[in-house]
Amino acid sequence: MANVLVVHGGGPTAVINASLYGVIMEAAEQGGIDHVYGAIGGSEGILKESFLDLAEYPREKLELLLTTPATAIGSSRYALEEEDYQAMAAVFEKYDIRYVLLNGGNGTMDTCGKIHRACRDHGITVVGIPKTVDNDIAVTDHTPGYGSAARYLSETVAEVGVDVKSLPIHVCVVEAMGRNAGWITASSALARKKPGDAPHLVYLPERPFCEEEFLEDVKKLYEEKGGVVVVASEGLKGRDGKPIVPPVFQTGRSVYYGDVSAYLAELVIRRLGIKARSEKPGICGRASIRLQSPVDRDEAVLAGREALRAALRGEGGKMVGFVREKTPDDSYRVSAVMIPIEEVMLYEKPVPKEYINDRGNDVTEAFLQWCRPLTGAAIPEYIDFQELYREKAGQE
Amino acid sequence: MANVLVVHGGGPTAVINASLYGVIMEAAEQGGIDHVYGAIGGSEGILKESFLDLAEYPREKLELLLTTPATAIGSSRYALEEEDYQAMAAVFEKYDIRYVLLNGGNGTMDTCGKIHRACRDHGITVVGIPKTVDNDIAVTDHTPGYGSAARYLSETVAEVGVDVKSLPIHVCVVEAMGRNAGWITASSALARKKPGDAPHLVYLPERPFCEEEFLEDVKKLYEEKGGVVVVASEGLKGRDGKPIVPPVFQTGRSVYYGDVSAYLAELVIRRLGIKARSEKPGICGRASIRLQSPVDRDEAVLAGREALRAALRGEGGKMVGFVREKTPDDSYRVSAVMIPIEEVMLYEKPVPKEYINDRGNDVTEAFLQWCRPLTGAAIPEYIDFQELYREKAGQE
Repeated sequence: MANVLVVHGGGPTAVINASLYGVIMEAAEQGGIDHVYGAIGGSEGILKESFLDLAEYPREKLELLLTTPATAIGSSRYALEEEDYQAMAAVFEKYDIRYVLLNGGNGTMDTCGKIHRACRDHGITVVGIPKTVDNDIAVTDHTPGYGSAARYLSETVAEVGVDVKSLPIHVCVVEAMGRNAGWITASSALARKKPGDAPHLVYLPERPFCEEEFLEDVKKLYEEKGGVVVVASEGLKGRDGKPIVPPVFQTGRSVYYGDVSAYLAELVIRRLGIKARSEKPGICGRASIRLQSPVDRDEAVLAGREALRAALRGEGGKMVGFVREKTPDDSYRVSAVMIPIEEVMLYEKPVPKEYINDRGNDVTEAFLQWCRPLTGAAIPEYIDFQELYREKAGQE
Repeated sequence: MANVLVVHGGGPTAVINASLYGVIMEAAEQGGIDHVYGAIGGSEGILKESFLDLAEYPREKLELLLTTPATAIGSSRYALEEEDYQAMAAVFEKYDIRYVLLNGGNGTMDTCGKIHRACRDHGITVVGIPKTVDNDIAVTDHTPGYGSAARYLSETVAEVGVDVKSLPIHVCVVEAMGRNAGWITASSALARKKPGDAPHLVYLPERPFCEEEFLEDVKKLYEEKGGVVVVASEGLKGRDGKPIVPPVFQTGRSVYYGDVSAYLAELVIRRLGIKARSEKPGICGRASIRLQSPVDRDEAVLAGREALRAALRGEGGKMVGFVREKTPDDSYRVSAVMIPIEEVMLYEKPVPKEYINDRGNDVTEAFLQWCRPLTGAAIPEYIDFQELYREKAGQE
């Protein structure tokens, strides 16, 4: 018999536990696996031999993984040293762990490659499961965790849009996660059911942010609508490449930047004399189970299953990825592929040019088409008597 | 035949449209009502005669009111003058409006009382429907809108708590709405399933905030847990009665204070050298339909129905309120009562002393018992292998 070990790295998503669920289910169906260990507390858990056999818990408990936010086995941001990798190989042998599955983002995939190199000669197969709300892992069409972050933000911005429209007296700036990649920010545009709906302005970190253009756009929209919804990435930078919000405080390697949303709201008040407020759902978004994408969750389960299958086939040093299939009716379907870890290690995938409009204050239709299937849910229908009144009064 | 007019005032809640739905349904069931008008754009909509007959829309459209955030007929913060009230009486007569229902918070109830006084001699009955996320309307046990705000914050903080616990490397400060009353902030404590769960510290604006005690408490909890979740009201004031965050900018009557959550996170970083971040869901919370409280929604419908019934009985100058009934098994049940408008006009109801603990960093069990039934949903069950591991390893 042989054992499997699952390790989580980095920040959580709404569906990382769904991948863990996928591994456990796949192991049960495949047979030949004795224990499915979870490393408690991330890669440090390997070195400390903090293992829990997850497969021994009853099915109804394990089902809770599908709706438990964050990571049920913990995680870490521990920086590993060369000697750690050798120590890990010894631990794996001690516990008869033949298959090691690392679930994480770019940093974790780097670790995954290094563990693979340190352990392959010991007969241990190491496979990566991608995970990040930021969607910045290379090669794969998209990453588990992103679809839920996109659904959360788009549905939330749709609701905020209705709120602002119903009492249109201010500019509302919503801050989105993703310091270097604007994928989450961009997804907010899915909130629109028709032209003119919120969000009215969308700013990604891939484009240098110009305050004057921003103020010009806000002013124009405010005069037209009375209520304006802006979505801005937490990582907006100016033309000089520096964050638009100056660092508030620096301690050691950590820099505390202050909030882009609050900064932009203040800019609107100060420069335009228009009332403005900021919202920063932050980790409330990545932890939201109510707004989990069902597509994302299913794909996360699939990623877990595929990782174990690949490991059993001996395909070490690879990460599970997704490609979109061509379908006769252009409907959305993905299949899993195995991507060599070297191709994804530490490379951050930005939003490409063709997904951002010319003025840099919105996304393109091509982006929306790409993103829409991932949220797994349409924006709900609302009723707007203000609009119906204007239609009736012939003002529109 | 006679007509009804519904008017919305102030900021939205997740269930204000549910009260509107209640009015329309009650009117249909009662008979004798020709049109149920909505004033488009709040009290300004009365003066502009911007009325839409809502009862003529098909039932399936009207059902959408139950799940449409914000206010489907708009709202306003327009400050009325004495002559406006006289003008309103003329408008009501012109449209055969005999029953006027105003849905709003303390400010709107003040307007409600004034319209009542200006119109009663014209045979027009004016009734108030309470609404506010802040729950600061006097006399009534609680206010429609609050239960949903409480469910949103408690379930969100439960999820944030799991997130922070799964990767316990920082202090997370969540900002809650309610500048003068801490009802929403307090509700976050419902997130706990057992002692030690998030939120770990809860600060209401009713108590002077002491930064030194805050830092002391955060430090102790961080050393114990590694991850600390703080919930702080947007309106925290120091012992001098001034907001703890100095005004960032002032323009006319509007003051822009900056965010309490960001201020406290920075304080933790600067003074304790501990990583900290802030989350400010803000209006994302009051607009959330997914986390609407089913109890709150039902009560909002009831409030709408009761308001029309009271109006038809000729009980003008009153607001619908709720009292808790004594039940044999102590289960939750409310009944509607009519409260004279003078008793609620412009008075802000704070959280009473007995709901706040001695140190002023948490709520009491009495508060939790009072608040729990209002959210209409228990915090979901999650699975935590980290905890199961510690139990197994006998570390707990």
